[in-house]
Amino acid sequence: MQRVLFGLLAVFFSTVALAQADPLPTWNQSPSKTAILEFVSKVTQDGGPDYVPAAERIAVFDNDGTLWSEKPFYFQLAFAFDRVKTLAPQHPEWKNKQPFKGVLENDIDAVLAGGEKALIELVMATHAGMTTEEFERIVKDWITTARHSGTGQLYTAMVFAPMLELLEYLRANDFKIYIVSGGGIEFMRPWVEAVYGVPPEQVIGSSIKVKYELRDGEPVLQRLPEIDFIDDKAGKPVGIHKFIGRRPLAAFGNSDGDLQMLQWTAAGDGSRFMLLVHHTDAEREYAYDRKSHVGKLDQALDEANRRGWTVVDMTRDWKAIYPSE
Amino acid sequence: MQRVLFGLLAVFFSTVALAQADPLPTWNQSPSKTAILEFVSKVTQDGGPDYVPAAERIAVFDNDGTLWSEKPFYFQLAFAFDRVKTLAPQHPEWKNKQPFKGVLENDIDAVLAGGEKALIELVMATHAGMTTEEFERIVKDWITTARHSGTGQLYTAMVFAPMLELLEYLRANDFKIYIVSGGGIEFMRPWVEAVYGVPPEQVIGSSIKVKYELRDGEPVLQRLPEIDFIDDKAGKPVGIHKFIGRRPLAAFGNSDGDLQMLQWTAAGDGSRFMLLVHHTDAEREYAYDRKSHVGKLDQALDEANRRGWTVVDMTRDWKAIYPSE
Repeated sequence: MQRVLFGLLAVFFSTVALAQADPLPTWNQSPSKTAILEFVSKVTQDGGPDYVPAAERIAVFDNDGTLWSEKPFYFQLAFAFDRVKTLAPQHPEWKNKQPFKGVLENDIDAVLAGGEKALIELVMATHAGMTTEEFERIVKDWITTARHSGTGQLYTAMVFAPMLELLEYLRANDFKIYIVSGGGIEFMRPWVEAVYGVPPEQVIGSSIKVKYELRDGEPVLQRLPEIDFIDDKAGKPVGIHKFIGRRPLAAFGNSDGDLQMLQWTAAGDGSRFMLLVHHTDAEREYAYDRKSHVGKLDQALDEANRRGWTVVDMTRDWKAIYPSE
Repeated sequence: MQRVLFGLLAVFFSTVALAQADPLPTWNQSPSKTAILEFVSKVTQDGGPDYVPAAERIAVFDNDGTLWSEKPFYFQLAFAFDRVKTLAPQHPEWKNKQPFKGVLENDIDAVLAGGEKALIELVMATHAGMTTEEFERIVKDWITTARHSGTGQLYTAMVFAPMLELLEYLRANDFKIYIVSGGGIEFMRPWVEAVYGVPPEQVIGSSIKVKYELRDGEPVLQRLPEIDFIDDKAGKPVGIHKFIGRRPLAAFGNSDGDLQMLQWTAAGDGSRFMLLVHHTDAEREYAYDRKSHVGKLDQALDEANRRGWTVVDMTRDWKAIYPSE
């Protein structure tokens, strides 16, 4: 019995030693870092007034612009463009038909001129018409080979090192991390576990419908060209409620698309934590906010400032942007 | 260091002692029990040919008729009937209008004569028109006070003791349990954690739409009288794919509504486990299968027999049905 006790004590003291090391070394000392550390300390302090049981420590993270870059346009759009080029030989009519013509001629303005309708058309042409297993293979192939036009890096190398640290720090404090993205749920699931350590069942995103079928006795889920759910703006609290059924304790975003998710989180009882990543670093990444088409941060920035939510200034707060630095 | 080692050894040997006790004492020695124990042993044996990493040990359970009783009709329908009676003073027109008239006069045949359309009408009148938080309170009040017409028990006392043991046994072997029910996701979430130990984020079910709104600056999710998703039959693999994004390793059901979930599970690579609960015990619970309206077990029973899936014979396999026995 005494041996067990000594064993437990040894484990305890090594835990204390670990806790004293800086869990966020890539974050500069700044109000953002202090706010994160204070919040986690508060809700995990057993017996303290703000203590929250581990089962209720849900943290939700937007993906595009919050966990990885999103410029010059959402990376999933680059995937759709690459798919259009791959599939073009089977669709000779695309040469003369927008938005496909624009994609094939690398004329992004022509594509974007078609607005949301054009983008949905691109998504349906490239994301539907195969089984879920086939689509998973296509995404895995792309994500491990395709490179970003600006940096020449794999897209998964353009994740934010300080946010990877933050995910790990929260997990070490028994938070359950969910990704809550406007991006496609099946575009993220094949790779987020390896890159962020977030398992597929903790990913919420936009989706198209799928249909269960038996093909020669073998069951498949076929992807249909029909929107199922848009997990953006007011859709984010809806998606959180649908998939998790608990209100998050903490929410992390970077654009007006995340505002409702932060509002919904903030409206819960007790201590809550809301954070926006503000892209201020044109040198190391990109600088954009109120006037940006992709990742517009305007209303949410005003509300964050008014309500005292944490706003990360990338230039000030982050020692490094990408893991390679 | 040696002290830590001794401490770890002590923990190890107490684990071995625990593992040798019967983890399913309420199950008689039968082919069903043997099949469960052999499957779990096989997929958890590190280094063995059938080993499956803990992260992939997903087990899905139907609820009505699999984890608790479902007679004389689904318990959620009893909830809807009780709600109709509670709300009737605000709806004088219900006295003369089916299916409400039938509910108020306890004329179940008249209600059921209206078919699916009547049931959907009842669900919309009783499950929509309030916020998600209000509905959660209503369900909690009902589930802690309402009693079953036949047994006089609380509904949560009519869960199956052998299945509670099975859930616990699977959790002890690092399985992640999901409930995948045709019942309402928001009808189950308020109480399944206390009763089954399954957290709300591991519940998949049928749903109505909700809408995010700000009311005097306070965000709410309002429940709308519109079907969002029916998690039954071919909807079950769709729901599993949508919420979990991994194929289950094991699936447990009791009716034709579970057939596609079992097919989808069975079609995965490597070892899989499929089980049907066959209600054979008219004395201790209910006996029904091919001709039953609620919980019909016909095609799925044939397929289970043909493919060698495990079929629990309640009379033969279970020492007790309910925890109170």
